[in-house]
Amino acid sequence: MGKRFKVNYRIPFYESDINHQIKLPHLLSFALQVSGLQSEELGNTDEFILEKYNLVWVITDYELEIERLPNYAETIEVETEAIAYNKLFCYRKFFIYGQDGQKIIDISSTFVLMDYDSRKVVSVKEAIVEPYGSEKIKKIIRGPKYDSLDDSAEQVLFHVRYLDLDMNGHVNNSKYLEWMYEAMDLDFLKQHIPKKIQLKYLKEIHYGKDILSLIQRDGLSTKHEIRSDQGLHAQALIEWRLKEGDQDDL
Amino acid sequence: MGKRFKVNYRIPFYESDINHQIKLPHLLSFALQVSGLQSEELGNTDEFILEKYNLVWVITDYELEIERLPNYAETIEVETEAIAYNKLFCYRKFFIYGQDGQKIIDISSTFVLMDYDSRKVVSVKEAIVEPYGSEKIKKIIRGPKYDSLDDSAEQVLFHVRYLDLDMNGHVNNSKYLEWMYEAMDLDFLKQHIPKKIQLKYLKEIHYGKDILSLIQRDGLSTKHEIRSDQGLHAQALIEWRLKEGDQDDL
Repeated sequence: MGKRFKVNYRIPFYESDINHQIKLPHLLSFALQVSGLQSEELGNTDEFILEKYNLVWVITDYELEIERLPNYAETIEVETEAIAYNKLFCYRKFFIYGQDGQKIIDISSTFVLMDYDSRKVVSVKEAIVEPYGSEKIKKIIRGPKYDSLDDSAEQVLFHVRYLDLDMNGHVNNSKYLEWMYEAMDLDFLKQHIPKKIQLKYLKEIHYGKDILSLIQRDGLSTKHEIRSDQGLHAQALIEWRLKEGDQDDL
Repeated sequence: MGKRFKVNYRIPFYESDINHQIKLPHLLSFALQVSGLQSEELGNTDEFILEKYNLVWVITDYELEIERLPNYAETIEVETEAIAYNKLFCYRKFFIYGQDGQKIIDISSTFVLMDYDSRKVVSVKEAIVEPYGSEKIKKIIRGPKYDSLDDSAEQVLFHVRYLDLDMNGHVNNSKYLEWMYEAMDLDFLKQHIPKKIQLKYLKEIHYGKDILSLIQRDGLSTKHEIRSDQGLHAQALIEWRLKEGDQDDL
């Protein structure tokens, strides 16, 4: 068991969507902030590992199981725990609890360490993961198989914007999910909420690039890809449910 | 003197720009959140005035005087005070203090009350403004004169996105400033920070619309317009300074 760390957060107006629930890409950003705060508490900040080892943390995979989304003005608790690591991957969980104390979202994430200059993944350094008290394992946790989308996929064009960039000049992780959302019908987004999201990051995107957000929908399942002229950058599988509880499994 | 209300806020990674400073549109969103929290403390929430009077607050003008922008991970204090009101307009200030306690940003804002259904501005109701303890004045505070941009202005096209919408299905105020930023050169934005911003909102924008962000630059001054096929939606004047302090007034 790794060390757990948690933060309370009240969903602000400006991060609430037309369904009066948190904008999901923002929840991913906030969760990442919580793991950053844990690193800070443990004296193991991103700045420290960049200075000492020239390494940065990069997320490769997310899996979200969503019971319900937090509502506008609800005070949630975001808890995180570094669960385990192997030679290359570090596995971290995030648990979101609603105002009533019930767990409403469970997030599994996979991180790797990347050399800041070469942008190559390096093996996990014990000194970097030791403070979190997570378990060393041999097993590699595999994500789902993401089939390639075919020509019937809808495509929506986006341009990487200045405010999409983070402090390091890279496109913020949460933007990929934003582009996936933006490729969907407004009516579908008004009537459905995500139940399960699997998301894989493959390659960084740079400022000024044009990207395509591809979507293929089959009932309550959608498949997504983010592509540019440099190839595939991210893939996702999303299962949706109707907003009204009774009709969940139609 | 109106009642003052303040909140501490630590600038998160995901709202920091490539200059390692807060993304300014986000600061406007957060300031607005602080005035919402004051209303809540006074039992005078937006929800309450919507239910009781069918009215909503709408911002018409901002003026920001910026000494410096808050840095990533800096804990700032955001203080607000409803200064005064007349027959139609309510004037509210926001003061941003840096971690060292110095005032770094001064924001003046103008609000009106609008009927939720007719979208028409109505006169200020005493019962709504009374809790803030602000002064009734006769004077109308005038903003600057915004000249129309001519044909030499650069134009950048944007599409109003799903995640641009707030809980009420309207485009969030801070998006207009985002579009103005996005019409500027990356190199200029890397080398300059805003010193003074005057911003006027004229008309709401709806989902799915195409908008044009127009910009005209003259040295360290820029003029901005947000237009659609329905006309002019917002105008701004921004004065910039070079990032290095010594060359401020070139």
